[in-house]
Amino acid sequence: MTFKILHEEGAARIGQLKTAHGTIETPFFMPVLTKGTGKYITTDDYRDMNIPAVISNAFLLSCKPGTKTIQQAGGLHHFMNFSGGIFTDCGGFQMSRSMYDAKSKKGLHFRNPFNNSKVVLTPKKIMEIQLQLGSDVAMMLDDMSGYGVTHTQAKQAMENTHRWGKESLQWHQELKKRYSSSQLLFGIIQGNFYPELREESARFINSLDFDGIAIGGVAIGEPKKEMYAAIDAAIPHISPAKPRYVMGVGSPEDLLELIGKGIDCFDSVYPTQTARHNTLFTKNGRINIDQTKYQQDFTPIEEDCPCHTCTQYTKAYLHHLSKVQEPAVKRLNSIHNVYFISNLLDEVKKSIKNQQFTEFKTTFLAKFKR
Amino acid sequence: MTFKILHEEGAARIGQLKTAHGTIETPFFMPVLTKGTGKYITTDDYRDMNIPAVISNAFLLSCKPGTKTIQQAGGLHHFMNFSGGIFTDCGGFQMSRSMYDAKSKKGLHFRNPFNNSKVVLTPKKIMEIQLQLGSDVAMMLDDMSGYGVTHTQAKQAMENTHRWGKESLQWHQELKKRYSSSQLLFGIIQGNFYPELREESARFINSLDFDGIAIGGVAIGEPKKEMYAAIDAAIPHISPAKPRYVMGVGSPEDLLELIGKGIDCFDSVYPTQTARHNTLFTKNGRINIDQTKYQQDFTPIEEDCPCHTCTQYTKAYLHHLSKVQEPAVKRLNSIHNVYFISNLLDEVKKSIKNQQFTEFKTTFLAKFKR
Repeated sequence: MTFKILHEEGAARIGQLKTAHGTIETPFFMPVLTKGTGKYITTDDYRDMNIPAVISNAFLLSCKPGTKTIQQAGGLHHFMNFSGGIFTDCGGFQMSRSMYDAKSKKGLHFRNPFNNSKVVLTPKKIMEIQLQLGSDVAMMLDDMSGYGVTHTQAKQAMENTHRWGKESLQWHQELKKRYSSSQLLFGIIQGNFYPELREESARFINSLDFDGIAIGGVAIGEPKKEMYAAIDAAIPHISPAKPRYVMGVGSPEDLLELIGKGIDCFDSVYPTQTARHNTLFTKNGRINIDQTKYQQDFTPIEEDCPCHTCTQYTKAYLHHLSKVQEPAVKRLNSIHNVYFISNLLDEVKKSIKNQQFTEFKTTFLAKFKR
Repeated sequence: MTFKILHEEGAARIGQLKTAHGTIETPFFMPVLTKGTGKYITTDDYRDMNIPAVISNAFLLSCKPGTKTIQQAGGLHHFMNFSGGIFTDCGGFQMSRSMYDAKSKKGLHFRNPFNNSKVVLTPKKIMEIQLQLGSDVAMMLDDMSGYGVTHTQAKQAMENTHRWGKESLQWHQELKKRYSSSQLLFGIIQGNFYPELREESARFINSLDFDGIAIGGVAIGEPKKEMYAAIDAAIPHISPAKPRYVMGVGSPEDLLELIGKGIDCFDSVYPTQTARHNTLFTKNGRINIDQTKYQQDFTPIEEDCPCHTCTQYTKAYLHHLSKVQEPAVKRLNSIHNVYFISNLLDEVKKSIKNQQFTEFKTTFLAKFKR
């Protein structure tokens, strides 16, 4: 069994996801290491915080340093010196970026951002790339439609996604043997913000033999209400026996809401991106370290926080570094926010084990959102 | 006794400089924390590397966060969380920057770079700032003339330096009592690249009651030969009983040369600045990690280096991070280069203790410069 549920409280659950690099306790949050590192923050920082898994971008890594280099390093774990779980995203999300050219029935057409050469990402190609990288969990190729597209466009993208999902599975099963790999493969539900498409996509993706089911194409600029409507339309049609992953979501509020709905896995640049813009998480809500009131506040971001930053530096110091635009502060801020999320998930798991998740969530959010 | 010599080999020596924050073994090298941090690298990194002392800029810190904030933090050691020795430079070196306005007999006229207000740095003012910051070693106010100035200009700057040196000493002695401080004060020799002025300046500064003597105004763009001529003209006129400090110099070659001439103390942005530009120190010389030959080199920068970077990451990985312009690499590179210098000084001290410095220097440079 790849995934095992150990505790449940309502829809919330604690599980174990077995990967080639150990068993990951769910729910868990993955920092994003797009090109093989965090921004300003490195894999050793994540190891020091006991982060169980991270996610990298397979398409970008295949452009640079290239799969050959990573294979010769002994795989992505060795290359970036991270021994926990590594997920790789296939690149569909990169459609929002400048390197996206077009799509066809075959796959996604990109420009290699480093040399401008044309790349067609087909299900076969991206499965092979992810096996070469040696990640623990590969993601199928999906077609993500942007916020605001018509029903017809959303349906077409969903249908591409479904076709590519089947092809991804087939190629993954065939190529896995060739690479003697035990890599897992997760499916991705699309359907934009049309709940009936989300339901249809969830039913279809769930019917295929994926090791886990992701909900993609959310948190792309839509109102929160629409995001939740899309997720709510999908969840009932995902087998409870499979790990459920909402891609691109990572705020404390969303993590608690979605864990309450039975989501097991998350990734997002949110904690580090906000940190780089000087917004820090505390149990009493977000603070902006740039505010004048922190100029002479010689206490850590959070008094009881055991993170690297809080045990060493004060808010006054972080405020100063930010005001004089020293890049070092971006790392210190990022470490705190990622630790905060990691610690939040530890508390969430403890509360589920004790059948106190609902209470924990209410108490946490009352303080955090006040 | 503030300074004690323990071992000597020729002009090279090992000493102990007693400060309010412990005894620093000489020769030592100080990383530059201009605004209270390194660039990308933080005081905890320096502590992990056992860096005995660092140097900050008193003028810039007085502009932001201001001496009040640092006093309320309990001094600069508390503010930036560094418990080793802290030197502060007075700001004369900042004359090379855009914030320099003019000079008068009274002192240096600057613009506060954060709010454009006018600041006149007089000896009294900068002594008071440094006492408020609570650094272990303050530097006198000096007038640094640029490379290529006339003899008349160089002489005038030297005369300002001498007058300000006397005034700095007087004010420091008076203010030290008021602040109940045991801060040390170092004098600074100027004289540009006119050896006779360097000699005159060394004689004068050495005649005053400073705790240590620095040679300033070198490594500002002049040819190496002229730098050494200026330093060589000064050294014989500095009492061997005082710690000797060459400001702004930090390449492995220069450290060895100058230690061989009896210099005890150094500071420079060189190891970190070159690191940010991807040049790394190894026993076999400098390497540029951007070179294609490192693309698939899965060994650390130096096989036997115990630094944070070498124990965790390969050249191929650092090469990749540099090629994809990830800022995290700047910290990893900086850590290695500073560790290299720190380790070099440990080996230098060992060699002086064993009366093998000359041999060590020859062997090291033969490998490093080949």
